[in-house]
Amino acid sequence: MTARVVLAYSGGLDTTVAIPYLAKMTGGEVVAVSLDLGQGGEDMESVRQRALDAGAVESVVIDAKDEFATDYCMPTIRANGLYQGEYPLVSAISRPLIVKHLVEAAKEFNGTHVSHGCTGKGNDQVRFETGFTDLAPELDIIAPARDYAWTRDKAIAFAEENDIPIEQSKKSPFSIDQNVFGRAIETGFLEDLWNAPTKDLYAYTEDPAIGNAPDEVIISFEGGTPVAIDGRKVTPLEAIEEMNRRAGAQGIGRLDMVEDRLVGIKSREIYEAPGAIALITAHQAMEAVTIERELARYKRTIEVEWASQVYDGLWYSPLKRSLDAFIDESQQHVTGDVRMVLHAGKATVNGRRSNHSLYDFNLATYDTGDTFDQTMAKGFVQLHGLSSKIANKRDREAQ
Amino acid sequence: MTARVVLAYSGGLDTTVAIPYLAKMTGGEVVAVSLDLGQGGEDMESVRQRALDAGAVESVVIDAKDEFATDYCMPTIRANGLYQGEYPLVSAISRPLIVKHLVEAAKEFNGTHVSHGCTGKGNDQVRFETGFTDLAPELDIIAPARDYAWTRDKAIAFAEENDIPIEQSKKSPFSIDQNVFGRAIETGFLEDLWNAPTKDLYAYTEDPAIGNAPDEVIISFEGGTPVAIDGRKVTPLEAIEEMNRRAGAQGIGRLDMVEDRLVGIKSREIYEAPGAIALITAHQAMEAVTIERELARYKRTIEVEWASQVYDGLWYSPLKRSLDAFIDESQQHVTGDVRMVLHAGKATVNGRRSNHSLYDFNLATYDTGDTFDQTMAKGFVQLHGLSSKIANKRDREAQ
Amino acid sequence: MTARVVLAYSGGLDTTVAIPYLAKMTGGEVVAVSLDLGQGGEDMESVRQRALDAGAVESVVIDAKDEFATDYCMPTIRANGLYQGEYPLVSAISRPLIVKHLVEAAKEFNGTHVSHGCTGKGNDQVRFETGFTDLAPELDIIAPARDYAWTRDKAIAFAEENDIPIEQSKKSPFSIDQNVFGRAIETGFLEDLWNAPTKDLYAYTEDPAIGNAPDEVIISFEGGTPVAIDGRKVTPLEAIEEMNRRAGAQGIGRLDMVEDRLVGIKSREIYEAPGAIALITAHQAMEAVTIERELARYKRTIEVEWASQVYDGLWYSPLKRSLDAFIDESQQHVTGDVRMVLHAGKATVNGRRSNHSLYDFNLATYDTGDTFDQTMAKGFVQLHGLSSKIANKRDREAQ
Amino acid sequence: MTARVVLAYSGGLDTTVAIPYLAKMTGGEVVAVSLDLGQGGEDMESVRQRALDAGAVESVVIDAKDEFATDYCMPTIRANGLYQGEYPLVSAISRPLIVKHLVEAAKEFNGTHVSHGCTGKGNDQVRFETGFTDLAPELDIIAPARDYAWTRDKAIAFAEENDIPIEQSKKSPFSIDQNVFGRAIETGFLEDLWNAPTKDLYAYTEDPAIGNAPDEVIISFEGGTPVAIDGRKVTPLEAIEEMNRRAGAQGIGRLDMVEDRLVGIKSREIYEAPGAIALITAHQAMEAVTIERELARYKRTIEVEWASQVYDGLWYSPLKRSLDAFIDESQQHVTGDVRMVLHAGKATVNGRRSNHSLYDFNLATYDTGDTFDQTMAKGFVQLHGLSSKIANKRDREAQ
Repeated sequence: MTARVVLAYSGGLDTTVAIPYLAKMTGGEVVAVSLDLGQGGEDMESVRQRALDAGAVESVVIDAKDEFATDYCMPTIRANGLYQGEYPLVSAISRPLIVKHLVEAAKEFNGTHVSHGCTGKGNDQVRFETGFTDLAPELDIIAPARDYAWTRDKAIAFAEENDIPIEQSKKSPFSIDQNVFGRAIETGFLEDLWNAPTKDLYAYTEDPAIGNAPDEVIISFEGGTPVAIDGRKVTPLEAIEEMNRRAGAQGIGRLDMVEDRLVGIKSREIYEAPGAIALITAHQAMEAVTIERELARYKRTIEVEWASQVYDGLWYSPLKRSLDAFIDESQQHVTGDVRMVLHAGKATVNGRRSNHSLYDFNLATYDTGDTFDQTMAKGFVQLHGLSSKIANKRDREAQ
Repeated sequence: MTARVVLAYSGGLDTTVAIPYLAKMTGGEVVAVSLDLGQGGEDMESVRQRALDAGAVESVVIDAKDEFATDYCMPTIRANGLYQGEYPLVSAISRPLIVKHLVEAAKEFNGTHVSHGCTGKGNDQVRFETGFTDLAPELDIIAPARDYAWTRDKAIAFAEENDIPIEQSKKSPFSIDQNVFGRAIETGFLEDLWNAPTKDLYAYTEDPAIGNAPDEVIISFEGGTPVAIDGRKVTPLEAIEEMNRRAGAQGIGRLDMVEDRLVGIKSREIYEAPGAIALITAHQAMEAVTIERELARYKRTIEVEWASQVYDGLWYSPLKRSLDAFIDESQQHVTGDVRMVLHAGKATVNGRRSNHSLYDFNLATYDTGDTFDQTMAKGFVQLHGLSSKIANKRDREAQ
Repeated sequence: MTARVVLAYSGGLDTTVAIPYLAKMTGGEVVAVSLDLGQGGEDMESVRQRALDAGAVESVVIDAKDEFATDYCMPTIRANGLYQGEYPLVSAISRPLIVKHLVEAAKEFNGTHVSHGCTGKGNDQVRFETGFTDLAPELDIIAPARDYAWTRDKAIAFAEENDIPIEQSKKSPFSIDQNVFGRAIETGFLEDLWNAPTKDLYAYTEDPAIGNAPDEVIISFEGGTPVAIDGRKVTPLEAIEEMNRRAGAQGIGRLDMVEDRLVGIKSREIYEAPGAIALITAHQAMEAVTIERELARYKRTIEVEWASQVYDGLWYSPLKRSLDAFIDESQQHVTGDVRMVLHAGKATVNGRRSNHSLYDFNLATYDTGDTFDQTMAKGFVQLHGLSSKIANKRDREAQ
Repeated sequence: MTARVVLAYSGGLDTTVAIPYLAKMTGGEVVAVSLDLGQGGEDMESVRQRALDAGAVESVVIDAKDEFATDYCMPTIRANGLYQGEYPLVSAISRPLIVKHLVEAAKEFNGTHVSHGCTGKGNDQVRFETGFTDLAPELDIIAPARDYAWTRDKAIAFAEENDIPIEQSKKSPFSIDQNVFGRAIETGFLEDLWNAPTKDLYAYTEDPAIGNAPDEVIISFEGGTPVAIDGRKVTPLEAIEEMNRRAGAQGIGRLDMVEDRLVGIKSREIYEAPGAIALITAHQAMEAVTIERELARYKRTIEVEWASQVYDGLWYSPLKRSLDAFIDESQQHVTGDVRMVLHAGKATVNGRRSNHSLYDFNLATYDTGDTFDQTMAKGFVQLHGLSSKIANKRDREAQ
């Protein structure tokens, strides 16, 4: 059977020249699949045409922006999905969606192989390939950058040898991945951990120091999902886009991290994710009002595990699904409004209201109307501390 | 035996009038104990004298600032101790230290009772009393505000009836607790969750919007503890004080939370903890460079539990001690420098360096010098995803 | 309004005499509610009549055996719900069901109060009362044993004073609670932890040492629930009853524990739960074949929390519901057969088969047919250990 | 530099013929290192000589029984280290010790390589190799069974071709690994999960059904470690050996598991570990008396993680060390006596006593002398359930 390689196609030089290269290496044909995840930049139709020009037998562009926002970004917000407590999993959640569409394309176009452009030292190879083996283990996987040491230099040389016309733009010193949920920048001078990021790195956010006037915003949630901004209904995609714009204008969502990669090494990463960070901040505040204490406490450890699973490329794993079930159940009443001030790099919550609130003014107040029966507290305190009291007594006596 | 009540004495009207009141209720004597935890305000000698004037048979003032910083604040930094992911446990860590000194005073002055001024609906009663029963279960506990419904009004009435001269300052509409690690403000109009905090609430921090010039600072850590700032050696207390000043000038460390109290209710809390937040931010960045991935991941869940234990008044509990042992072991190599920019409400890390770094440029770089063997990755990816692959296959076939 | 006390009525002397006593104390009426949870003993109609004879205005008996087995015991099996790794929560899961029916009876009979016979130092008071406040906080709670120090002696005295005819059986030296899921025995000479339990304590199990012939049984599961035994379809109740009989005949399910009560003290408990232990053992073996590794690992910590929540009387809590959602999702494929030998106190699994199995002979075998690609392992091992390798190297160099 | 391969040498045919094979493949020399871990069988001196006869330039036998018992088995007991809740990590804890001695031998004999006989689909390759890279990353690793597909057939063929005299014993159909802590059996007809194990599999345990008379034993612990049996002082090694004998005579410690291997597949494993299971059972009972409730609860999840780390070959990892620190702290007061009856496959605890006991008869008893203040319970119950009560009320109202 002739090989048919379904390639995750970005439109860049490397994956463009990879089209004839993969055809040659496999003796088969290449189907290019490109997803619009809100990464911006070039017109997607040009991307599609370029793949055909490079020799792809089919080239497909899929507008997956709404699907991405609804089925991948919103669960991340509900999970307060922050790897290492900071990184909102921007690239990590995009890979399983790309995988899903590549697998569908492989079915539609009788693909025998799937292929991606990731190297062998990053996380994304893992996310692509566990996705492929989870959803379609019958497809063979080719990772030219890793398996054939395919590089930009090799791509240029191959293009020249094979008379493939290429447009050689000046290569950015950085490796960049972006979609509507955020933007990741690595390599270059950032590989020295002591070097501070420079202003030219950023594209989604303004410098927090420029002094834009504070911007007050009200985010409304239903069941853990943002559904309105300042009273106007929004789709998940619109929520992210609007908050990207408004929080981005205030320099919110810039991250400078040393990150633990799944492959066992640490790396320096710069992110900007203004909408993601603003929305998660609001979501956490909404949860604080509407989720019961013990559930809230336990959910914190569930969130750590959820973020690890997703970061580690296990979006389609059984554990991820059970964690999702826990989180979905927890979100039933995460409904109401959060008011925030966006300013100078920070989203600050300063008000919340909800018909599902667990805050009880009459129990909390020290003013008239107090319904909390303080005489109950004495007994509570005594039994709350009893096992520790007995243990401390034993410790003293046993010495 | 005549009762001798050792009272946690603040110098305020309520606990001052409580001195003769407790003496009357118990038919005994009162020993006043006041701790200087860096809360500022009044001269401690005046406080000491006021207790004597009110009838205390002994009045002791203890400068516990360094002890507090070293033995209570530093462990909180090493644990990244943030209740609900935000609150650096300002009041929660002060209570066990006050307890410790009250118990010592009870031994010195033959105390039979200990007493505190907390109400029956807050956390601090629990922290005081579990501390007392942990360290000295033989002492009886009196909580006049809870057990005798002792209030400001009652105090004033009692003072008038008993010809006790009092100075009736205008009562703040807020309930405030403060020490060198931070400041807590509650009640008043804040009890409506939709009301934003007003500027006059704050004392440790400037308004982040006033536009002070950014302040760059280098914090040096040894074994998880800050030991130098901008190259100058500092004690733990000095580290907190300097960062209070510098981060406070930038409006860093303001928190507006809905908090889950131990007694089962939610309450609105405003905090300012500029030094605490700045130091914990730096500490987390130092850990990211020097702690191995799996340890770092697991420590996150340990931190959640540590903060809960401390918040819940279990500083002296056996579980807290075992969590401490875990954390202490983890901090051995958390040594090096972190550079941060303090500005407009936010501490932003932009550089880190360490002789104990786990970051390996040669493994991480995409440039020449790369020592990472990418051919290893293929096998890793396959086995990493194998159990999920088998499960997904089963799921499809079993439907 | 006249008080109407809905009483959890056992038929014993204490709760019988409590009927007129509660009527007198509240100036109202008493409605007796008794549940058949398979505890055996007396005919339930006699129990019902006795309450009326003692002055209850209504007396209701509810056959809740199937409901208990299906909605309370089966979730415990799916959760492998073993407090302290041993106790299958026999009494803990019965209380929320009794509560549910008392609350329903209160609605039907216009109850204003609910009442139970538990003391103030056990767990069951907590389970009753958190259940009541969760489901019907408008009902007042009376716990005569705790709140009025109601005891057997007091009951006898009260009966004599009020000419209430009572049948004074010889009181067991033990406190016993039992239902179809098991039997709990405490107090008496067992309060000395060094005393071994005596043979007369047991009623659900034979002495394991008597040497009954081994009994081989095949338990079939669907979605984590036992549905057939030796090929015959069974209801949840029948599954427990049959395994009580067969595992009981082999002395399986006897437990001798020092237990951590919710109220902060340790107590000695003897349990017998032959069906529960046999079914959980089989369930764990079924899970080992059908649940993916990472899910199985994480479920272990979920199980610890689930058992704690249920033991602590939080059956109806939000956290319990989210844990249930996790567990339900995990059980989808826990389907197949487990073969066990029941003998001499132990249920030993020795075979399992399933159409949902994740065991793959061709991957596991060392014989011909092996499909596991061993060359993948080398890369896996290297990256699996890489972060620890780097850390150990750092540790040596940093010393 | 000439290669010097330090080989983990078992004395069996495969590793014996591997000696000249490794010499040939590397063009170097082989140093054989054999550890006595109490696996019994052949005299270790014969093993040593056989390696020399096969061409090893050095052959070393190390009696590591006491070190193994003290530094590897005892921590496992203190951690109640049971993978999947059952398997006491018999092989998993032996590999890091073998690694340690191989690394020492490499230093002593100027080794350049280390080598082991494990295949590429098991756990032990991982445990060996993460151990090697943790302790001595400068050594190259050769795994002939995996990297050169070295098998018994290949060994026999190589021996014949090279005139190496071999004694071809009838190969067991099973793959067996054993040491003083237990014995593991896999492959053969056991690869069909429905096949029950046969009696001939077992060597450390009698058939539990043979009806030996019950054997009562008292195990004494100090700080979590068994130090005496029936009043006689024992070393860790003696404790294991004596309990192997006595619990083995009763058929205790037989396990039949479907196990989740680290490499992602499930496998059937039969274990016998009479001493390990008996000692862990006693240890758990000792902990129940001497460890405070919250610490005990949390330690359960720590134990799950500890067992996973050790199973996964991460004995020398930073996380393992921090978990150890937690456990060590928890064991301080795990001191006292546990009485057990060993009989027919089961170790049943029926008594415990300790000067470090947290059990307080006066708090627990329902008899005279009761010091538990039941009036405290009412307040406790109310606040314990308050947050869930508020949440349930909200849930009803918000529907």
